[in-house]
Amino acid sequence: MRFFEDIPVGARAETGAHTFSAEEIKRFATAFDPQAFHTDEAAAAKSHFGALCASGWHTLAVWMRLNVHSMGEEVRKLSAAGAPVAKIGPSPGFEDLKWLKPVYAGDTISFETTVLDKRPSRSRPGWGLITMRNVGHNQSGDEVIRFTAAVFVERRDKIPADGTAP
Amino acid sequence: MRFFEDIPVGARAETGAHTFSAEEIKRFATAFDPQAFHTDEAAAAKSHFGALCASGWHTLAVWMRLNVHSMGEEVRKLSAAGAPVAKIGPSPGFEDLKWLKPVYAGDTISFETTVLDKRPSRSRPGWGLITMRNVGHNQSGDEVIRFTAAVFVERRDKIPADGTAP
Repeated sequence: MRFFEDIPVGARAETGAHTFSAEEIKRFATAFDPQAFHTDEAAAAKSHFGALCASGWHTLAVWMRLNVHSMGEEVRKLSAAGAPVAKIGPSPGFEDLKWLKPVYAGDTISFETTVLDKRPSRSRPGWGLITMRNVGHNQSGDEVIRFTAAVFVERRDKIPADGTAP
Repeated sequence: MRFFEDIPVGARAETGAHTFSAEEIKRFATAFDPQAFHTDEAAAAKSHFGALCASGWHTLAVWMRLNVHSMGEEVRKLSAAGAPVAKIGPSPGFEDLKWLKPVYAGDTISFETTVLDKRPSRSRPGWGLITMRNVGHNQSGDEVIRFTAAVFVERRDKIPADGTAP
């Protein structure tokens, strides 16, 4: 990650995209959300969803995988450029999660993130708290998921002035 | 589910409990949250968590499985008693999710739910919206996760007065 000081409010970035296959929708739902509209095409066709669709928790889990990958890519780019890399801390949680439309088998969801707010952490000296809005759109441009997440990011002022990271 | 009218605000129920094995923690994290403190014991020991712990999304996914099972049990009990069973609709989302403590390999998390609020739905005639606080505690009694979820539940007044469900 970039350091707290280097992340501007309003910054927008793509997190990644994923196409949800019927097979993986059924596999996740069988393990964690075994409701018929997530595990069986025929039952889903008769449900209020009208067709097989992903568990909302599956959509979130896929977002997390893309998010971890995206953070790893940023670390690789910063390291390749010889820039110092900020640590990120644990996420204290999430707010206002909305599942706005179903994610159907075959849908490709593209996620993006926008920095809503930042402030130095009171509870963790040397860290700042970044608040981000994450949204996912399907291939028709419909928003399918939206939530606000907070994450602790290291502050640059922990690094000695000569640039040598601890 | 019971009908909207039959669910009292303040009602509290156990959702179920689950022991998180190291193997399943690593399997989930490899698929959806591949950070070293969720996938590798040695790396986790050196991290700020101090030991292998579950992805927060894994804890949520396990809660969802227990929740689906718990709802199924309630349907079976109502049906066995000859009582009508209310439908539940899709969840519009959740709020204020907090991961308060890590869930370590070997931890047993017990979940419970409390009805915080209920109101007839304006957007869906015949349905009500139930808001619930869900919490999970580990075997030491520490709260590890907490979130507020909303769900649409069918209203009894859709059922004809003679008790024959549509």
